[in-house]
Amino acid sequence: QERSSKGRCFCADKGANMVLVKNIEKVEIIPPSPSCRKHEIIVTLKNGGGQKCMNPESKFTKNVIIKALEKR
Amino acid sequence: QERSSKGRCFCADKGANMVLVKNIEKVEIIPPSPSCRKHEIIVTLKNGGGQKCMNPESKFTKNVIIKALEKR
Repeated sequence: QERSSKGRCFCADKGANMVLVKNIEKVEIIPPSPSCRKHEIIVTLKNGGGQKCMNPESKFTKNVIIKALEKR
Repeated sequence: QERSSKGRCFCADKGANMVLVKNIEKVEIIPPSPSCRKHEIIVTLKNGGGQKCMNPESKFTKNVIIKALEKR
């Protein structure tokens, strides 16, 4: 995952459309801020898999997050 | 926000139903893991406001997160 060279947004490109759900340790949603105008969704992967930017508009990203909200 | 004394889940209780959106620096969604059987949604507040557990089932929490996904 190439970091944004401009040093403002964490995610340089649109981000991945999919990752293996079982590899997800954490999902971070970072709202727009003065330093980065767009929403960023960053997934931390298990077992030192590092961080990966997710495309906020991909169906997968939405489903993973919404499922997290619905789980009893 | 009282931490879970059992040292497993980060959130000891059900969590807040609402926070001021403009105070949100980051939203973290932590799926269930061997050390904590439930989904946890933790909001980091701006200006050193610390972290706050959110109730995953509260309408507010869902709306804030879903809005983050829909923003162009």
